[in-house]
Amino acid sequence: MTGKPLRLYPLPPWEVSAIYEDLELPPAGRRDASRPYVIINMVSSLDGKVAIEGKASRLGSETDRQTMRTLRSKADAVMIGAGTLRAERLSLGLDDPAGPQPLAVIATTSGNVPLESNLIAGERQEVLVVAPEDVTVRFSERRPRVLRVSKDLSSNIDLAETLKVLRTEYTVDLLLVEGGPKLSHSLISQNLADELFLTLAPKLLGGIPGEGPTILSGNVLVAGDIHLLSAYLVGDELFLRYGLHPFHLDD
Amino acid sequence: MTGKPLRLYPLPPWEVSAIYEDLELPPAGRRDASRPYVIINMVSSLDGKVAIEGKASRLGSETDRQTMRTLRSKADAVMIGAGTLRAERLSLGLDDPAGPQPLAVIATTSGNVPLESNLIAGERQEVLVVAPEDVTVRFSERRPRVLRVSKDLSSNIDLAETLKVLRTEYTVDLLLVEGGPKLSHSLISQNLADELFLTLAPKLLGGIPGEGPTILSGNVLVAGDIHLLSAYLVGDELFLRYGLHPFHLDD
Repeated sequence: MTGKPLRLYPLPPWEVSAIYEDLELPPAGRRDASRPYVIINMVSSLDGKVAIEGKASRLGSETDRQTMRTLRSKADAVMIGAGTLRAERLSLGLDDPAGPQPLAVIATTSGNVPLESNLIAGERQEVLVVAPEDVTVRFSERRPRVLRVSKDLSSNIDLAETLKVLRTEYTVDLLLVEGGPKLSHSLISQNLADELFLTLAPKLLGGIPGEGPTILSGNVLVAGDIHLLSAYLVGDELFLRYGLHPFHLDD
Repeated sequence: MTGKPLRLYPLPPWEVSAIYEDLELPPAGRRDASRPYVIINMVSSLDGKVAIEGKASRLGSETDRQTMRTLRSKADAVMIGAGTLRAERLSLGLDDPAGPQPLAVIATTSGNVPLESNLIAGERQEVLVVAPEDVTVRFSERRPRVLRVSKDLSSNIDLAETLKVLRTEYTVDLLLVEGGPKLSHSLISQNLADELFLTLAPKLLGGIPGEGPTILSGNVLVAGDIHLLSAYLVGDELFLRYGLHPFHLDD
């Protein structure tokens, strides 16, 4: 026992108006201000799956989507991998198309970014595609800005370089990453992610191994301490916030 | 929003002496007394993985193992699939070898149950192997009782029949299932599981899809409502108890 167990639920209710609304992000006293503070937000079933028929949007509740928008409202940029964009039509912005929008960042290795068909973005939302120098980015009418970066040893985009450029040239101080599993894994395994916001949906999806992804996909990670920062419950859905500092090998 | 969010953590602490110690299982008012009340206990990483290098025992903390023993102490029988037995040397009993022990039940389709090498069981723990009628059960010195049951449509053992026999011939009223993912999936998909005790270990394991199992492995399940019954926190590890009643299609 590392301490006495605390019963979290049931408990006398301590209601709050909205999850994460009062959260200060990035937190004061972060270590590395040379890159954006990176938070990852994903939803998972109880059996670790992140998508129903390939679409993550079907897994979380309306509260989960509201929580996602709360985090987006604090972020300077919202980043996803191109595979997530190809999987379904999605928005990376806020509800009010007239208000300020976070920069939408699409990371791609292949250059296949179907912005026209799959990205719902109003005129006020800028779109930035991050791609390796030697890859042709295919798009039709909508012409996003394209940020060219080096490849890392795995022939993916160099994420450390990407984050530094987002910080210096795009003034991104808080970067929200919404998957997919490969991009999240790459950031965590390279010690470039600071927090994981994990929604645990009260669902069991089944499926055989390899059929459905979990929140992370990549090499086996070296286990480290991860700290639960807060937990919220709405209905039967848990909203968990974890600090990933121990993955920073340079600590 | 299906209701106001409740902040579970941080909260003023409400310490308890041990997780699940005072839990009444089976609960009063269960619906189907013709089979044992079935609870599944598994541990998962935050990214949904259930084993480190094939061994589930490395994932949970000492508190998780203590919680497992608390549940075992309430159970009349503890059941695992033979694949879980083959994966590592394990016990299905309690710490005190002189005290009463739950019946150890190993479910097998292949007949490959390495009891001698992998099952740690004192003399007071009876062992029952459940196998299809036409399968040769291979064991050497230790001669367990073998329960012969029909095969289901998937050529696995008929779990509904198995549970009924455990109830009528072995007086098993509370059955604790400790995996693996295939057995747990089979029980849930056939509406034979009543509760899921899920330990959420504060770890991220990575791995590519198909490399590591999640808590369930099998066909895609039809989503249903699942209810959080309680949540406990020790250190950064969450102990979640879910009611699976909605999977009972006969409701």
